[in-house]
Amino acid sequence: MLKDWRKEEKPDNEELSRRLEQARIQLAARQLAIKEKHLPVLVILEGWGAAGKGSVLGRVIRNMDPRFFKVDVGKEPSEEERRRPFLYRHFIKIPEAGKFAFLVGSWMKEITRGYVQRELDEEAYKNRLVSVQRFERQLTDNGYLVLKLFFHIGEKEQKKRLEELSENKSTKWRVTDADLDQNRNYKKWENVYDEYMEQTNQSSAPWYIIDSRSKKWAELQMLELMVQAIDTALMNPSRAVPLLQNRFPLEAIPQLSAISLQDKVLKEAQYREELKVCQKRLGELHNELYRKKIPVVIAYEGWDAAGKGGNIKRVAAALDPRGYEVHPIASPEPHEKARHYLWRFWTRLPKEGHIAIFDRTWYGRVMVERLEGFCSENDWQRAYNEINEFEKELADWGAVIVKFWVQIDKDTQLERFTLRQNTPEKQWKITDEDWRNREKWDAYEEAVNEMLQKTNTVYAPWCVLESNSKQYARIKALKTVIAAIEKKLKERV
Amino acid sequence: MLKDWRKEEKPDNEELSRRLEQARIQLAARQLAIKEKHLPVLVILEGWGAAGKGSVLGRVIRNMDPRFFKVDVGKEPSEEERRRPFLYRHFIKIPEAGKFAFLVGSWMKEITRGYVQRELDEEAYKNRLVSVQRFERQLTDNGYLVLKLFFHIGEKEQKKRLEELSENKSTKWRVTDADLDQNRNYKKWENVYDEYMEQTNQSSAPWYIIDSRSKKWAELQMLELMVQAIDTALMNPSRAVPLLQNRFPLEAIPQLSAISLQDKVLKEAQYREELKVCQKRLGELHNELYRKKIPVVIAYEGWDAAGKGGNIKRVAAALDPRGYEVHPIASPEPHEKARHYLWRFWTRLPKEGHIAIFDRTWYGRVMVERLEGFCSENDWQRAYNEINEFEKELADWGAVIVKFWVQIDKDTQLERFTLRQNTPEKQWKITDEDWRNREKWDAYEEAVNEMLQKTNTVYAPWCVLESNSKQYARIKALKTVIAAIEKKLKERV
Repeated sequence: MLKDWRKEEKPDNEELSRRLEQARIQLAARQLAIKEKHLPVLVILEGWGAAGKGSVLGRVIRNMDPRFFKVDVGKEPSEEERRRPFLYRHFIKIPEAGKFAFLVGSWMKEITRGYVQRELDEEAYKNRLVSVQRFERQLTDNGYLVLKLFFHIGEKEQKKRLEELSENKSTKWRVTDADLDQNRNYKKWENVYDEYMEQTNQSSAPWYIIDSRSKKWAELQMLELMVQAIDTALMNPSRAVPLLQNRFPLEAIPQLSAISLQDKVLKEAQYREELKVCQKRLGELHNELYRKKIPVVIAYEGWDAAGKGGNIKRVAAALDPRGYEVHPIASPEPHEKARHYLWRFWTRLPKEGHIAIFDRTWYGRVMVERLEGFCSENDWQRAYNEINEFEKELADWGAVIVKFWVQIDKDTQLERFTLRQNTPEKQWKITDEDWRNREKWDAYEEAVNEMLQKTNTVYAPWCVLESNSKQYARIKALKTVIAAIEKKLKERV
Repeated sequence: MLKDWRKEEKPDNEELSRRLEQARIQLAARQLAIKEKHLPVLVILEGWGAAGKGSVLGRVIRNMDPRFFKVDVGKEPSEEERRRPFLYRHFIKIPEAGKFAFLVGSWMKEITRGYVQRELDEEAYKNRLVSVQRFERQLTDNGYLVLKLFFHIGEKEQKKRLEELSENKSTKWRVTDADLDQNRNYKKWENVYDEYMEQTNQSSAPWYIIDSRSKKWAELQMLELMVQAIDTALMNPSRAVPLLQNRFPLEAIPQLSAISLQDKVLKEAQYREELKVCQKRLGELHNELYRKKIPVVIAYEGWDAAGKGGNIKRVAAALDPRGYEVHPIASPEPHEKARHYLWRFWTRLPKEGHIAIFDRTWYGRVMVERLEGFCSENDWQRAYNEINEFEKELADWGAVIVKFWVQIDKDTQLERFTLRQNTPEKQWKITDEDWRNREKWDAYEEAVNEMLQKTNTVYAPWCVLESNSKQYARIKALKTVIAAIEKKLKERV
């Protein structure tokens, strides 16, 4: 990118001022347009130290309405952030529909620095690039405008600026050792930036290089690029994108209809006994997880009245309350709905050593959202791969991932609905919606089967809990969680 | 791609037959849909020797209407094809809107083979990949569905098939030395295929790997992928794509208004003298070009009545008629309009050693098509880069490229229009359209200025011919062509 980049000619001052004024007016108008059309705009500002990213952005936002944007300056990951998956601190910053997010120094900064400082070896670096390609592609596929700007200055110009900053007492603090090191090894950094940008230069989110020798001129380039990119994005109110072939290792899993339920029972006495043993063991393991900083994600999906709540309760009862959280997932709130559908799960990820239990999950995309038409066909069809990618990030991070489908048959559901209906203290648990969903049982079963087939990855497999007998299902859940944790602990040794 | 590819499970025979029947019916319906929606569909079949590409395609098209598709089997480039740019023989095969083109072995086959056989060194190979990325991106950006299938079989399976084919007298001829060599060096080829597919796996045209162990199963995968990809493409009736930043070396060029015309004159006697000298020299050079197999592309654009025709005549008069062709470019014919707008120029490219003169050119996209609304704004804005890419292919091929803008002022045009109007034998040269275009002079001038700025590349620069004096313009044209050829001949020594 940098190596064959061709500078635009900087216009003369008169022309520059004229175009600046025009571009500011245009951007102001685009703010309202993106709000009206619900377009989320993510602007990434990367570039050389002392290239002026911050001050150019300062000029750009001076003419913007503060309600429409957020600015985030990329710092080194905090201790807290280091305890989450690499993409976590970036993903949670994506804007909501109709708003701008400006990120000054983002994942590019983090990855290139990590590579140069050898915190990332060749393989880890390549894996990061794959993560970034997926992340950015997921954003644009889901209707985000992702605008990637690289602020460029030459070696001499950078040196001059660093010297000027150093000489002035009030700006001296802004020159870091990293900046000086970068200038001393300019060629090396240029290669690293170049390679990174070539590898992440997707047609749906290309890189743009900003000639940053003059602030006004850099501001103009940024403004004009924003206006142009927004106009292009607004021409595509909804857009279907090619579905990608699965590249993750899948394991076969039986259809729901092939799972026998009647024989999966547990007598009360045996249940009591096993529950005690399992909970004790899980409690011990929770301690060990905490010490070894292993994160755990447990996902529950299943039919209404299948017994998810009671099941989760038995697992949670074994855990230290300081080290786990249960996330009940209902319909998304407006601020969640306004973002990528995985955002509200990214924000709820546990820290290393902690356990997050999701009562309903990201699989809503390929079940309720699919069947109720809350997203387009292309959206939910794409989601299998997006979810596999999401869980791959968790697996690569080192998480134990357990996904439960809590299974009952249709008759059992009817029994439980009827019981709830007829028991005053249980009536709150049954709604008209439950009855409506029940009418769509067959369509849901088809969707669940497709989901199980397409997301039963080796690194995040499904476990079906036969829950006509709730006791049986609870013990199986506990044993599955225990086995998954024990397996991970062995790998870690 | 191949290395982390996960096979789908082959369904049992009953299921396979059921889905095959369904997919055939669906594809039959999609034929009509793509016709109605004017979607062009390019299906590329690549893969291992003996993977069964041909026979699977045979099954697929058995159920298709022959009016809706063409099949092309990629052979080694012919002697004739080797005398054109590398992409020529591929570009000319793209389908028209509403139809399918199936290419069995295409540019991937050519490039990977060239690389393995060391006809392409590392650098040439990388340049080919860039060409392919651009080519495929141009197609999808311009509304093509590009479906790329790789038919995969394992090393043992390939060996078994090759042996079976060799043992049977009637099929023995089908096993080439190249096939046997590929099987002997399976791992090496696997690496090459893998690398190629990773590098060309764009989100707008991803690769799909077809498990080809069984023909029926491969057919089903291909049919289902086609149906799915067509459905996705049909959801996007028109689509704006991000505009890419220029990465080609541009040179500054003055605005039309800054070009003085009045002082650019030539007296008749001097004109006669210079014409003779120039034409003689150009004739000599044409011979040399022919011997050294250097192709020349001369492009003429300019105002109506600027004197393009007479200018071209003077250049052509110097040339050997066996070695040049003049292409007058009018509105596209229906079969041209139904394809990528550069298609009709690709098909008219000269052979090595030959000269092609275009009387109006591909720049119509950013002039008349822009101003008359024959394409969308995103289309013509994207076209500057597409045209620079096109001309880069020509330059890399080794062509001399000369682009003329024939410039007159508005008064001179009026004089010439009036003269034409009042001279019976010249009246055919003036139409109502000319007068209408004249009314849009200012808008055209703005478009021309933008065109000149954005496409004045170092490898294909514009030359403005001041043509208030036609004599002056003709001599300048001849001298420019001569100089460009002489420069190229020097480089070649």
